[in-house]
Amino acid sequence: MSTYQAPLADMRFALFDVLGADRRFEQLGFTEATRDVLDAVLEEGARFTETVLAPLNAIGDRDGCTLDRATGAVTTPPGFREAYAQYVEGGWSGLTSPPEFGGQGLPHAAGIALKEMIDAANLAWGNFPLLSHGATEALLHHGEDWQRDVFLKPLIDGRWTGTMCLTEPHCGTDLGLLRTRAEPGEDGSYSITGTKIFITAGEHDMTENIIHLVLARLPDAPAGSKGISLFVVPKVRVGRDGSTGERNGVRCGSLEHKMGIHGSATCVMNFDGAQGWLVGQPHRGLAAMFTMMNTARLAVGLQGLGLSDRAYQNALRYSRERLQMRSLSGAKYPDKPADPIIVHPDVRRMLLTCKALIEGSRVMGYHAALLVDIAHASPDAGERAQADALLGFMTPIAKACLTEWGVECTYHALQCYGGHGYIAEHGVEQLARDARITTLYEGTTGIQALDLLGRKVMQQQGEGLKVMLGLIEQLCSEQATNDAVAPYIPMLREKASQWQQLTREIGRRAAANADEIGAAAYDYLMYSGYVTLGYWWLRSVAASEASTHNDAFKVAKRETARFYFERVLPRTLVHASAIESGAAPLMTLEADAFDN
Amino acid sequence: MSTYQAPLADMRFALFDVLGADRRFEQLGFTEATRDVLDAVLEEGARFTETVLAPLNAIGDRDGCTLDRATGAVTTPPGFREAYAQYVEGGWSGLTSPPEFGGQGLPHAAGIALKEMIDAANLAWGNFPLLSHGATEALLHHGEDWQRDVFLKPLIDGRWTGTMCLTEPHCGTDLGLLRTRAEPGEDGSYSITGTKIFITAGEHDMTENIIHLVLARLPDAPAGSKGISLFVVPKVRVGRDGSTGERNGVRCGSLEHKMGIHGSATCVMNFDGAQGWLVGQPHRGLAAMFTMMNTARLAVGLQGLGLSDRAYQNALRYSRERLQMRSLSGAKYPDKPADPIIVHPDVRRMLLTCKALIEGSRVMGYHAALLVDIAHASPDAGERAQADALLGFMTPIAKACLTEWGVECTYHALQCYGGHGYIAEHGVEQLARDARITTLYEGTTGIQALDLLGRKVMQQQGEGLKVMLGLIEQLCSEQATNDAVAPYIPMLREKASQWQQLTREIGRRAAANADEIGAAAYDYLMYSGYVTLGYWWLRSVAASEASTHNDAFKVAKRETARFYFERVLPRTLVHASAIESGAAPLMTLEADAFDN
Repeated sequence: MSTYQAPLADMRFALFDVLGADRRFEQLGFTEATRDVLDAVLEEGARFTETVLAPLNAIGDRDGCTLDRATGAVTTPPGFREAYAQYVEGGWSGLTSPPEFGGQGLPHAAGIALKEMIDAANLAWGNFPLLSHGATEALLHHGEDWQRDVFLKPLIDGRWTGTMCLTEPHCGTDLGLLRTRAEPGEDGSYSITGTKIFITAGEHDMTENIIHLVLARLPDAPAGSKGISLFVVPKVRVGRDGSTGERNGVRCGSLEHKMGIHGSATCVMNFDGAQGWLVGQPHRGLAAMFTMMNTARLAVGLQGLGLSDRAYQNALRYSRERLQMRSLSGAKYPDKPADPIIVHPDVRRMLLTCKALIEGSRVMGYHAALLVDIAHASPDAGERAQADALLGFMTPIAKACLTEWGVECTYHALQCYGGHGYIAEHGVEQLARDARITTLYEGTTGIQALDLLGRKVMQQQGEGLKVMLGLIEQLCSEQATNDAVAPYIPMLREKASQWQQLTREIGRRAAANADEIGAAAYDYLMYSGYVTLGYWWLRSVAASEASTHNDAFKVAKRETARFYFERVLPRTLVHASAIESGAAPLMTLEADAFDN
Repeated sequence: MSTYQAPLADMRFALFDVLGADRRFEQLGFTEATRDVLDAVLEEGARFTETVLAPLNAIGDRDGCTLDRATGAVTTPPGFREAYAQYVEGGWSGLTSPPEFGGQGLPHAAGIALKEMIDAANLAWGNFPLLSHGATEALLHHGEDWQRDVFLKPLIDGRWTGTMCLTEPHCGTDLGLLRTRAEPGEDGSYSITGTKIFITAGEHDMTENIIHLVLARLPDAPAGSKGISLFVVPKVRVGRDGSTGERNGVRCGSLEHKMGIHGSATCVMNFDGAQGWLVGQPHRGLAAMFTMMNTARLAVGLQGLGLSDRAYQNALRYSRERLQMRSLSGAKYPDKPADPIIVHPDVRRMLLTCKALIEGSRVMGYHAALLVDIAHASPDAGERAQADALLGFMTPIAKACLTEWGVECTYHALQCYGGHGYIAEHGVEQLARDARITTLYEGTTGIQALDLLGRKVMQQQGEGLKVMLGLIEQLCSEQATNDAVAPYIPMLREKASQWQQLTREIGRRAAANADEIGAAAYDYLMYSGYVTLGYWWLRSVAASEASTHNDAFKVAKRETARFYFERVLPRTLVHASAIESGAAPLMTLEADAFDN
């Protein structure tokens, strides 16, 4: 069994010491988000996730969800339903939602550590409440008044959950191909018909109603992505007065058998003349959906981080307990039959890689959440715009990198266990299987890379990149005389400068051949992730040195930063080399020659 | 469902065009191994694995093996037993075994493509016959005459299977800690008592007897790895005359629940006063076991290759069929609703990475198998010694790299499927789970790295490295005027030269601090793998150009080599950088500070 202990000390360090979130919240007018309240959220969140959710993780994996084909009802794994009731009762559901609809109105960044804890404790369970936030956002920003009045309160207090119904069997990334139809009725509602797949929490036994946000085509819709509208389709019909009525024409047709996240219900949803209501403008559904997707993408990035951390914690414990071989430089524990494997440099290489990626990612991910708050709530329009640009730039980086690193860290953690890592009872193989979904859903890594390079950099003239480069230069200037930071400043500056050069070079090439974007995108994204993490590592060391933490804490931050700069950041060499090689090595071979 | 088609054309290319295996077999005196016979083995092997084994792969994953706790009997998945009977009937079992014990006496390299096909078609099934080879080797080289007479024929003709019983709950890598006891009896046999874990094919329903090769301690054994002896312990007792008697005191106590290879029986084996016979000298069991392990390590490397290839084949088909988005450089199939995803550069990046790693690995792996034959059968003692040194050097490289690339290629293949890759019915997620064992068993990647750098390079003065460097320089000289090869020669020479420098530098540092070996080992191993693969890619292009293959074949080899040199070989930059950073960034942080 793998265990989980919320890393509260490092969470506080990231939020308060590095990001100064408590001071920012005050400036942004979140008067409720005092340090006391934030600490209480962290401590109670740790208690809930460690004692309620974490013990259900292996059970969810083993038992999964089950579908009653006769009724279309889905039963969640033992304990999931009760844990959800505790979640609602504890008021976790509306933590960062608007008070006018029953939420607690805390800033987004105040909920981000809780999100990480939930993901680490029980990713599959976390997917049930997760999508409610997307549905809430869509209705909040695009719904009519009556829709907000009727749907938001129960979504925010957790009585109901939400879904995002995008994918169809023949279209995932390419939503322009979707076929689900919406026929207008006489009462202003629409009749929705079609099949949606990969619907997370599409059906379950935790709440009395489920609110589906569904993309579909109106009869007069133009072809392609400009003919897609958004509808709200409740499982149980809801009147304009909020009264619930009969069962709607939507039903779970089957559950997918997946590599992991067995406890999460991944549903095929059949809409058969289901009553739905248009949300926002006709044919503008994709734009509304994208509003939801940005938050969802950050949320999936956090999933990668949470899994990495849980895997690391367990691998670390195992590496301290497992006695095997002597250190090559002489026995370190001569009184034991062998040394614990953490004495071996290669085990340390794997553990330190995890530690450096995790702690750096935590600051990166939490910072992105803070940008959401700044972009929404800053009184300064210029600051709002800058935060928005940086957030748009960082979202694909955080989503893709934190999930790719989630795959990598769970790989290293499993490897530390040797053959035992492959055995279910140790629990680390579940984390590796669960992590594997995160680079796929809410847009694969390749899609994030195109979003970053094609849209955020090339189409938007690199607004976010400029902000990030400015932050890097500011840090390098400010910290030039800080002995703990200064040794790494030349390398960070060099990488930042190469980042600009690579961006310009891709732009030049792309003017002649648009495939240069696609050919560079993945490596550009990873390059960006590593440079950004280098920035956050130096910010972390600077914050640690300036803090009241003890020496052991400061040494650990310094040594992990050193490892990052000497052993991880050089990965940029390969990504830069790949970008420089251009599109030709990828595009020359004919598609029918790949099996020659 | 994933499908499998044996890549016969590329297998033939590797064996005959690049390695000239048919001519080498003739020189080595394998008169039976004519091109006709070798072609028949390939074609019949393809038929057997494609039609018999491949369709059972998903069934094995779904149903797994089951244990009857009352009797200790293990039932294999539906169809496995019948497939094994066909395997025996087809004469596959003894393909490369000595004729004096009923084998067909073909060279080791003549069976290597069959090995790849079996692994690709059904890795879990392949683990049942696999370990018979190790047991055969151990008895052949270390057994007494009566042991060879009694055990070898049924192991070679497949009537019985074998196992290797090394690991115990508290010791895997560190066999010096093992506790299983062997008490001498009056009849010259020994009574074996202890618990072994992770015993592949330890119990099953395919054969009437199972021959366990077991490491245990004699009563007078010195502590540590110099007090371990090897015993042969049949499931059903066997007399010195070959007669089988009653059930021996060995029994499967439980089956492990694993991340993958569900169809493979991974057993806890309880030896409770089981009758066994000493194989070889007392206290010299570890050396005898290592004989078996080298072949087993190459075999596991081939597993990585087989899984990579199957995953690639399926991802390639999916990427040609799945229509999603338009090419950024303009619609490539305007008559279809969208372009197949293989038009997208990032999908091509993933596919070409697989193709370059797979085809290069095939030559590397087959060459190692050929070295086994040369080391055993060359009439020239100098050539035998050289082949042996190169084989010892290449074994950890091939084992670790082909399995790490197996994890990587199954990752890329799954990623090509997007969210569908995560769903069991497509079959690619099984390949990813199955691949995950290969970097663990028969020695983790970290252990291979220590074997390479610590033993093969540092202790043995780099004998094998010198041979490999000689081959590289010879190729570069010979191909200097070959237009298809020449552009890559400077890069290969530069990497080979850096390889030598890095080796010297590590040696210099290790003289002062033995942890420098462990700190460099993983990156040294991967560096070695990429340079070696570069060599095999240039050999492949040279062989292709000189062959009678059609232009499409030659273009594909040239383009894949180009991709390898421009997009994969630069990974050496990171590994070199890591080696140069030395041990300090790994070793400074105290073990108790990893969770600070």
